[in-house]
This record gives sequence, C-alpha cells and structure tokens, in this order.
Amino acid sequence: MTLSARSRADVAAALNDIQAPVRDRLGAVSAEIWRIVAADLPLAEEVGAHLMGMKGKMFRPTLLLLASAVDDTPDDVRAIPLAATVEVLHLATLVHDDAVDHSVLRRGMPTVNALYSHQISVIMGDYLYARTMAELVRVGDFEVMRVFARSSTEMTIGELRQLSAFDALRFDEDDYFRLIRAKTAALFRTATEVGALCGAASHRSALATFGERLGMAFQIADDLLDYTEAQEMTGKPTGLDLREHKVTLPLIAALRDMPAAPRQRVEQLFSEPAPNDALVADVVSIVTEHGGLEYARRRGEQVTREAEEALASLPESAARTALFDAIGYVLDRRW
Amino acid sequence: MTLSARSRADVAAALNDIQAPVRDRLGAVSAEIWRIVAADLPLAEEVGAHLMGMKGKMFRPTLLLLASAVDDTPDDVRAIPLAATVEVLHLATLVHDDAVDHSVLRRGMPTVNALYSHQISVIMGDYLYARTMAELVRVGDFEVMRVFARSSTEMTIGELRQLSAFDALRFDEDDYFRLIRAKTAALFRTATEVGALCGAASHRSALATFGERLGMAFQIADDLLDYTEAQEMTGKPTGLDLREHKVTLPLIAALRDMPAAPRQRVEQLFSEPAPNDALVADVVSIVTEHGGLEYARRRGEQVTREAEEALASLPESAARTALFDAIGYVLDRRW
Repeated sequence: MTLSARSRADVAAALNDIQAPVRDRLGAVSAEIWRIVAADLPLAEEVGAHLMGMKGKMFRPTLLLLASAVDDTPDDVRAIPLAATVEVLHLATLVHDDAVDHSVLRRGMPTVNALYSHQISVIMGDYLYARTMAELVRVGDFEVMRVFARSSTEMTIGELRQLSAFDALRFDEDDYFRLIRAKTAALFRTATEVGALCGAASHRSALATFGERLGMAFQIADDLLDYTEAQEMTGKPTGLDLREHKVTLPLIAALRDMPAAPRQRVEQLFSEPAPNDALVADVVSIVTEHGGLEYARRRGEQVTREAEEALASLPESAARTALFDAIGYVLDRRW
Repeated sequence: MTLSARSRADVAAALNDIQAPVRDRLGAVSAEIWRIVAADLPLAEEVGAHLMGMKGKMFRPTLLLLASAVDDTPDDVRAIPLAATVEVLHLATLVHDDAVDHSVLRRGMPTVNALYSHQISVIMGDYLYARTMAELVRVGDFEVMRVFARSSTEMTIGELRQLSAFDALRFDEDDYFRLIRAKTAALFRTATEVGALCGAASHRSALATFGERLGMAFQIADDLLDYTEAQEMTGKPTGLDLREHKVTLPLIAALRDMPAAPRQRVEQLFSEPAPNDALVADVVSIVTEHGGLEYARRRGEQVTREAEEALASLPESAARTALFDAIGYVLDRRW
C-alpha cells in the first residue's frame, strides 16, 4: 500500500470501485436521507437541500452497507434506513463542528453557519440529532440504538476533551489517540458494527474493530494532510490546525526530542492568537524536519494493519474486498 | 383562580405543596441526574455541577412523577430515571437556547455560554442530548422513546420556526400557538405522557393533553411576564423579548386594531437593531393600552380551563390534586 499522493481522478475511481457492490442500495439510502430530514417547514427543507449537497461521498453509509453484506444476504429493511441514519448523524456533527469553529467553508461549499446564521446551525444540528433518534425508534432495534447512543456520547466527550485541553502543548500521544477514537473512529465503528447487526451478526466484533481502526487511520491521514496539502485540493488552507492551535500527531511526535530553538518557535505560534503565514510555514517545516510526519505515517500504517487483520476472519466476498480497498482509499485520499 | 401576582414566598409554598406527594422520589431523581450527566472528564463534571445548580425547581420531573401516581402504584424502576431524563433533556435545550441567544444570565446565574465558552455550550448541549438517548436506551421502553423522539423533533422545529420568522410583525396568533406548543408544551406533554406510561397507562391521553395545555399556559404566562415584571424578580430585564424582536401573544393581540401612530412606534422598535429603554417602555405601554395583556390573559385562562378539564376523568388522589394545583402555580408564579 503506497502512502504517496495519488491524483484526484485515481482517488475517485477507487471510491467508485469500493461502492460498486452496493451501488443500487446507496441510491436507496439517498432517498431515505431525504425522508428523514424532510420537515413541513421551508427553512428545514432548504437547509436540508444544502446538507444533501454537503453529504459528499456517503463513505459511512457505504461502510455500513458493505459490512452488512460480508456474509449472508443483508436485511435491507433495516440496513438502508440505518445507513441513511448514520449519515444524518454525521451531518449533525458536521453542522455543529462548523458552528463551534465558526467555519465558513466545508468541502469547498459554504457552511450552514456561513450561509444562514450561527443560531440556525446550532438548532439545525439539534434537529438532525432529533431526527436520528426518531429514525432509530422507527427502525426499532435496541442493539442498534445502543451502538448509536454509545458513539454519540463518545463523540461529544471527544469534542469536550479537545475544547478543554487548555495547555495545548502538553497534549500527548495517548490524549491524541483517545481523542481520535472518540471524535472520528466512533462513528466509523458505528457504521460497520451496525452493518454487522443487519446481516453479519457473527462478525460483529471483527467489523467493529475494523471500523474503529479505519476511522483512526482516516483521522491520522486527515491530520497529516493539514501539514502536507495545499489549499486547492482540500478547500481549506494548509496548516489550519496550527492556526487554530490544534495539536495533532505530527507535532506531538516532533516535539518529543526537539531542541530549544525550534521549540521556542512552536511555542511562539501557540502564544499568538492569529499566527501569520510565515510562522505557520516555519512550524510546518520544523515538524517535518523533526520527523513528525514520518512518525505519524508509521503510526497510521500500524493502525492500517490492524484494520486489515480485523478483516482476516471474514469469508471471501465482494464486500470484504471492497472493505479492504476502503483502507487504501482512506490513505490515498489524503497522503 | 386568581391571575394577580402573589409574593415569592407564596409561590415557593405552593410549589412545596405540589411536590409533597413525590418529595422522596424527587430526591432519588436528583441522584439519577448526577449519574446520567457524570463523565470521566473534569470539564463535564464541572459543567455538570453548574447545570445541577441551574436545574432549578425540577418542575418537569415533578409532573412526570405525579402523573405516574394518579391511579396505581407507579413503576419507579422506570419513573425515577425517566424523570431525571426529562430534566436532562430540558437542560440540553436550555444550554443551546442560551448559546443561540448569547445569553449571559439564566435564573440569575451565569450561563454555560458566559461561564465557559460558546463552543463548550454547543458541545455540552450535544453531550446532554447524547446522554438522554443513552439513558432511554438503558431504560429500554420503546413507547417512551417514541414520545421523547417526537418531542425532540417538535422542539427543534419550533426553534427553527422562530428563527426563520423573517418578518416578525406578520407572525400571527396561529403561528404563536404552533410555536409554543412545539417550544414549551411538547416537553411538558412528554413529562406527563411518560409519567402515564409508568403507572397510569389508561390515562395516557388525558395526561398528555393536560401536560400540553399546562405547558402552553406556562409559556403564555412567561411571555406576559416579559411585559409586566421588573428585573428584580426574573433576573432579566423587562421587555427582553421586545429588545430581541420576539413577537409574543400580547403584541400580536394589540396589533390587531392598532391605529397608525402607535403602530409606527412598534415598527420603529422592530427596525432598530438595539432599541433603547424609552422605546421599549413606550411599546410596552402601547401593548397594554391596546388590550394585548388582557387578551393574552384571557387566552391563558382558556388554555388553563382545558388543562383542568383534562384532569376531570382521573380518579381522586393526592397526585391529581397536586397536578390541579400545578395549574395555579404556573399562573401565579408569573402573572
């Protein structure tokens, strides 16, 4: 598995391959998302349409549908609406993330926050959470609800952890892994674990582990991207995490044996409310030179191998192959 | 039932009487709230402690417990944690309301918003929603979950409606009643309906109607208070709704046959981003003179009678008497 950057076209083609075994079912999921977010209210309708534009690649529903098909015939009466529900929950977290960060762009599109108002983005997120719960009640599977309830708690605790890390530079590798497990991996795990509950219950534990490790790899890749990619591809500026004083794995690793002079530069960045481009670029170089990117890539590869190993116990199938390819997609998309 | 203002001591005594039949059970509810909001995270713990201070009079848990006891022996294995859950959900909505309104005070105490940060208040609200859902899953009653899911959706739609009312002065009485049913009455109804499901299932419909009407009376009283009470008692300035360009029943009623001159004054207030004290006081007088308060009180009394009628079918009991007294409390507390 190469960790070098691929072209955008290659990445899209890879996603296309991954989604091939569930293409028809994904179409049904889109319709279900509409049904779930629809409300007799022009604003909700309008924001809902905007969110449908935001929903992007439906990666989490794809994982759920693939997981549900690794063994037997999936139970689509539950799998399709639940794949939609996992995306609605994901949208709820995105809307609130953007509200919290006062972000104006997401995937190159204006956020709800920017397009409507901060107030509307808070309440629209709540609406999407409420719809998630209503849909789970409609589907009526307690084990599934338990998985969703747990990940919702984990995700918000993860965010609180991040917001309450007052002394950013003391944030260590354990803190980081605890954070990404909660913030990102919990929802990936929900997708694959709930998928298992819709047709592959005997593989529940393996698929849950797979989802968690995949989500961790996804976030490590995302955090690396902040150091390696230019604005054009991401729709957001490189070094954004640094500008916002967010400490991720590359910086944590680089800081370990960093001499006083570069460390002072890093501390300077974290003491300035709005560090300028030169300072950000300088710290990106320092992190690179002190092995931060290399270390983060290595840890990402380890997590990736754990994801692969989790798939080993599953029977051969097109769905399993696609899940395997999803690992490569998560990495190539970003690194 | 008198609609004149009573002293604060009288109101507290009235609440004491209402809570007497469920005093011991309310103590257990407080412990359950702690259990539900506790997290292995100093910040959540700290904010949780702050919220426990905010939780105030536990009026919604009181209603749930009373409703559960109107007929038979209540099922406290469910009633106690669900009474706690309804308060946690209420706290979640308060935290997000304050975040949306950028409020700094609530019941005379600083808001999470003011005390920590806007970001933390958004995520802390999400955390409380997640805990609500997790607790509902733990209790494991689908009918109860259905009631909660419906009211969560209604509450957020109510808020969206309010935020999307662009031309405030065209907001009419139907809009107003739709709004307060969603924004306030839905959670009161949840409390009494879920209470019914924990011991008085045959009275579910009557208790649901009672809760809804009580909640509407509560909100009408609250909106009247904004016109009639001074800062000392409420912890917030009189006329706050007008300052924030919120249109409530007194203004809607007063505007109906209002001559051009005073109407212009009202329009002036609504065109100024930050109307001054004199203008607010002037519009309060205009609304009073044009019968707005009188009309709102009359509608409040109608709703109150509907709440009383809903109790008529219940058997005599201490709980029923206390629910009846709760109507008077809602009115006297405010008017």
